Amino acid sequence: MIDLRSDTVTKPDDAMREAARDAEVGDDVYGEDPTVNELEARAADLVGFEDALYVPTGTMGNQVAVRTHTDRGQEVLTERESHVVKWELGGMAQLANLQVRTVDGGPRGIPTPEQVREEYVEEDLHRPGTGLLTLENTHNSKGGVAAAPEKVDAVAEAAHDLGVPVHLDGARVCNAAVANDVPPARMTECVDSVMFCLSKGLGAPVGSILAGDAEFVERARRNRKLFGGGMRQAGVIAGPGLLALENVERLADDHESARELAERLGEVEGLDVQEPETNIVLVNTEGAGLTAEEFLGACEDAGVAGVEFDTHVARFCTHWDVDGEDVAEAAERVREAVEN
Amino acid sequence: MIDLRSDTVTKPDDAMREAARDAEVGDDVYGEDPTVNELEARAADLVGFEDALYVPTGTMGNQVAVRTHTDRGQEVLTERESHVVKWELGGMAQLANLQVRTVDGGPRGIPTPEQVREEYVEEDLHRPGTGLLTLENTHNSKGGVAAAPEKVDAVAEAAHDLGVPVHLDGARVCNAAVANDVPPARMTECVDSVMFCLSKGLGAPVGSILAGDAEFVERARRNRKLFGGGMRQAGVIAGPGLLALENVERLADDHESARELAERLGEVEGLDVQEPETNIVLVNTEGAGLTAEEFLGACEDAGVAGVEFDTHVARFCTHWDVDGEDVAEAAERVREAVEN
Amino acid sequence: MIDLRSDTVTKPDDAMREAARDAEVGDDVYGEDPTVNELEARAADLVGFEDALYVPTGTMGNQVAVRTHTDRGQEVLTERESHVVKWELGGMAQLANLQVRTVDGGPRGIPTPEQVREEYVEEDLHRPGTGLLTLENTHNSKGGVAAAPEKVDAVAEAAHDLGVPVHLDGARVCNAAVANDVPPARMTECVDSVMFCLSKGLGAPVGSILAGDAEFVERARRNRKLFGGGMRQAGVIAGPGLLALENVERLADDHESARELAERLGEVEGLDVQEPETNIVLVNTEGAGLTAEEFLGACEDAGVAGVEFDTHVARFCTHWDVDGEDVAEAAERVREAVEN
Amino acid sequence: MIDLRSDTVTKPDDAMREAARDAEVGDDVYGEDPTVNELEARAADLVGFEDALYVPTGTMGNQVAVRTHTDRGQEVLTERESHVVKWELGGMAQLANLQVRTVDGGPRGIPTPEQVREEYVEEDLHRPGTGLLTLENTHNSKGGVAAAPEKVDAVAEAAHDLGVPVHLDGARVCNAAVANDVPPARMTECVDSVMFCLSKGLGAPVGSILAGDAEFVERARRNRKLFGGGMRQAGVIAGPGLLALENVERLADDHESARELAERLGEVEGLDVQEPETNIVLVNTEGAGLTAEEFLGACEDAGVAGVEFDTHVARFCTHWDVDGEDVAEAAERVREAVEN
Repeated sequence: MIDLRSDTVTKPDDAMREAARDAEVGDDVYGEDPTVNELEARAADLVGFEDALYVPTGTMGNQVAVRTHTDRGQEVLTERESHVVKWELGGMAQLANLQVRTVDGGPRGIPTPEQVREEYVEEDLHRPGTGLLTLENTHNSKGGVAAAPEKVDAVAEAAHDLGVPVHLDGARVCNAAVANDVPPARMTECVDSVMFCLSKGLGAPVGSILAGDAEFVERARRNRKLFGGGMRQAGVIAGPGLLALENVERLADDHESARELAERLGEVEGLDVQEPETNIVLVNTEGAGLTAEEFLGACEDAGVAGVEFDTHVARFCTHWDVDGEDVAEAAERVREAVEN
Repeated sequence: MIDLRSDTVTKPDDAMREAARDAEVGDDVYGEDPTVNELEARAADLVGFEDALYVPTGTMGNQVAVRTHTDRGQEVLTERESHVVKWELGGMAQLANLQVRTVDGGPRGIPTPEQVREEYVEEDLHRPGTGLLTLENTHNSKGGVAAAPEKVDAVAEAAHDLGVPVHLDGARVCNAAVANDVPPARMTECVDSVMFCLSKGLGAPVGSILAGDAEFVERARRNRKLFGGGMRQAGVIAGPGLLALENVERLADDHESARELAERLGEVEGLDVQEPETNIVLVNTEGAGLTAEEFLGACEDAGVAGVEFDTHVARFCTHWDVDGEDVAEAAERVREAVEN
Repeated sequence: MIDLRSDTVTKPDDAMREAARDAEVGDDVYGEDPTVNELEARAADLVGFEDALYVPTGTMGNQVAVRTHTDRGQEVLTERESHVVKWELGGMAQLANLQVRTVDGGPRGIPTPEQVREEYVEEDLHRPGTGLLTLENTHNSKGGVAAAPEKVDAVAEAAHDLGVPVHLDGARVCNAAVANDVPPARMTECVDSVMFCLSKGLGAPVGSILAGDAEFVERARRNRKLFGGGMRQAGVIAGPGLLALENVERLADDHESARELAERLGEVEGLDVQEPETNIVLVNTEGAGLTAEEFLGACEDAGVAGVEFDTHVARFCTHWDVDGEDVAEAAERVREAVEN
Repeated sequence: MIDLRSDTVTKPDDAMREAARDAEVGDDVYGEDPTVNELEARAADLVGFEDALYVPTGTMGNQVAVRTHTDRGQEVLTERESHVVKWELGGMAQLANLQVRTVDGGPRGIPTPEQVREEYVEEDLHRPGTGLLTLENTHNSKGGVAAAPEKVDAVAEAAHDLGVPVHLDGARVCNAAVANDVPPARMTECVDSVMFCLSKGLGAPVGSILAGDAEFVERARRNRKLFGGGMRQAGVIAGPGLLALENVERLADDHESARELAERLGEVEGLDVQEPETNIVLVNTEGAGLTAEEFLGACEDAGVAGVEFDTHVARFCTHWDVDGEDVAEAAERVREAVEN
């Protein structure tokens, strides 16, 4: 099976496995795990923040950020199709009692400054005030599109002008950086916090980073504890995480694979393929007379795995464990599956 | 001052005041207030439900309904500009931890069956399932538009087909009934619960009704207690409420006043007036080179009060305490205010 | 039936009914109901605070206070048998996500300063900090005992020394004042807010007061709105409430009735009667070989109504609608019921 | 430094490190990590349940259990000094809106069946019903005391008779089993779920187990996701966790070390040492004229680390990384520290 379901499926390589074995560890609840401490420091540097927090998952990183930025009784402004709204079990309402206000971020999933100004609510006797803006870049549901840093800056500044902090769900922000040909820190210049995943394209087995200024991270640490994310000798997984930080440039290979996959799939009769900007390829199956579910079933029978995104949209995701040859083979198998 | 800010500003007439004085009362927490009991029974009849609950405000009625229909960890589907989302302090998230999912209900504020089917989320490992659809009719933010009962039926049935119950915020559902020339019960035929206000166009000083089937109302009674709505000798206000139930047909006068007001305001240079369907008149002030705030300030100086709805939109609301002469006079004052 | 279930069952007298009819009213959501405004001002004076808020129920007053005093993620310190914990549906956890920490307040239901210091939790990485102390005086579950103002002062000061605000559930604080022979304001001298009921011994049909400093009341007003307590022409019930404020001294009659009832019931073989301090009489029925349920059933058959407090404890409550003759008759009926 | 602060400070041995390196992994969010799957199966067996869930921390395990067992609007009955109440940031109220009702579990920290029956609340119009009983064994705050399985059975059965499920916080339930000389499954025979830590005395670097019946674990998996505990290639830490399951019998060594430490510390003038039942030693420092903080400061200067439990109570905890010689040396250093 050529597994293109997600870049989360990557398995750690030998170097990462050695790092797991050899990590110097301590009890991170006491702040004494040197590997975690090093990871947090270096990860903070990578995205240009004072400090960072190692969390077991991206969902926890996002939810900790949301709760840390806000007060009781506020609203969160977020993009309609964003991960925090769609795939995190309603955590913003469940864990922080926040009312979600969504805007349509268009094909790139980034709201405009105008939208932020329009949807901003000033707290009064009847209305919960806007307490946070969350962004997502690259934007998963939009097909891994990579917004330009200037676009992120502009909307973040609009929020700041209104006194609203900005959290970036940057699960794949390093992909966005590579696509924009800038360092990751450029992508986060104007936001107040960022979460990014070590366990996606960067290849670590477990864990994500939540970065912000020192005071934010101190308070976030307490919310991590509340949600049950205060692990002990976490160096065992932070060690591979440190190596993951070295993999940013390697993401270009995944983008190249995605382009190749898209090109080849685009040649298949009936498939409408969105041109990828990073490592995600969205395929509309309607022209082939197939639902995404039927299409993916046929693909799986042919040895290629993807995931359903919408009734007629399937997603393939390239990653470390597949190379150019794999995607060529995958495309060939998909073609045969569709044409039969 | 001709007060057109809201139909909530009406003062009880002599008959209502007498009813307050003369009400037979008891402790409603024990279910022993005969006037409350009669009000609940007759109000249930009016909207065609088995049972009803008297609540101090429409906000409480809506929030009790939302919490009673749902379970922990669900989503509520609702119209983007609806009162429960805009004006209730985020209660659905604050008091029931529900994630709000909004749809754009268009100019009449009623989502289509297609929208419901599209936005419905089936509960799975990553997603909170849709637990409730709320509707609003007449729709305040859209200008008091009155959706036809068939439109409400259609979207409610779409929700039911998905196993999703439907609550109608019918704060002004009697206005909708009058506008549609049907009895109120026709407007609620396919929904599972309705809240309507006695204290708006119906003229009661205090209180709203939440109606549904007997089992729903029994559970709602407990949530009313939780929110602090379990009053004692509430017959004092339920008495006037009983008279309010007689005022449904009288709402036609408010609608007539609104049409007259709109017609006259429409003749004022620079004002763009939405044709009213019920008792709400929306005025766009942009053409007059005024913000709504400036416009309303000028109106107030001239002796007419309204409220701001958006940067360039002001709302006037007709009600029991103003008649045709009052609105003619109001229009004249507004004209002078704008033309100066 | 001589109804001694609660002092909430009192029905408004003619003067109150006239006040309901004649109240000058306005829309209190806009702050324009002169009767509500007068009630809030005079009620604030009565308990010695800057400002006050009229709420439909005591439960809402308490829950609004709790939410207004605290932040997300804190603990509330409260007496084990207090009303906010036992009878308000878990509102502190349900509506404000606060962890309750209870102390045993002993026979008078007021924790000692030592208990407060011992149970106080300083916020740290693992622990929610103490955000509020709530007291109850008179204490319902303890039998309407009236703590001395000095006791309340002492424990409140202990809390203040730790930076913890204090809310007094004073549903019956006027009874406590009368029992201590001091004005109500003396009972609340050291607390930061007080809720007291107009609808209990003071005789109003509906409503309670939440008093505090001006900034607190302003924020409380917003939480009242959230919970659905922002009523419209509430002067109709605030009018009788104004008269209720005149009834403080009259509570002495209820206390006298309670003493007489207790004395007479104490002569009944098998009943163990707690000496009342205010208007509540607790009767232990174990010596009569009866559960409270059996005892109350027999009483009801004989024409006297009370409520069950515990397996072997029944409560009778005196109030405006019963006088010395009524309680003498009630005691006689109870005697016959028990002796048969 | 001889580190006796907690059994969480243990570092993985070579075998565990090799297991981290060599673990067969997959994406556990898809249920495809064979090492996690094996760990969950074997851990479930160890405590006698159908199924189990691997969670990053004990706190998450407890909080997931609490939320999974309960409905909105309920109460949780728990021991006054239990970890879920004291050390988990109020999670039961913060994450599941549950009102906590505490009982004093006495010196062994296990409530009696009578207490459960007395504190049980039947849901009604005014009261949140009891939705869960949580127990803790061994009980940390009481000094690692190990309740007998029969005691746990008895109180659990009392809860079951009332329709209340029982969750056991068994962070150190294997220590309890060893102390009672029974297999771990005997300790959990009558409860509905158990959380136990791999990262304490069992020596794993990261992770805990939540076990229950299959339906419970399925729903718990969703709440784990909500809290952000759904990790990816978690086999890297589950591998060492599998080895931790082999370490149950080894806990006897920690208990022996604790006994030796207690005996030696008991000989130090001024220290009052509670006789340990498992691996926790509580030392009362009052007789030495020292607060726990002063005492621990002196100990630390002398090269021994413990933690403060109360003003005059310090805790030492034995574990895998200290042996008999270490504790003898530790005791000697403490003696010198105190005597100087």
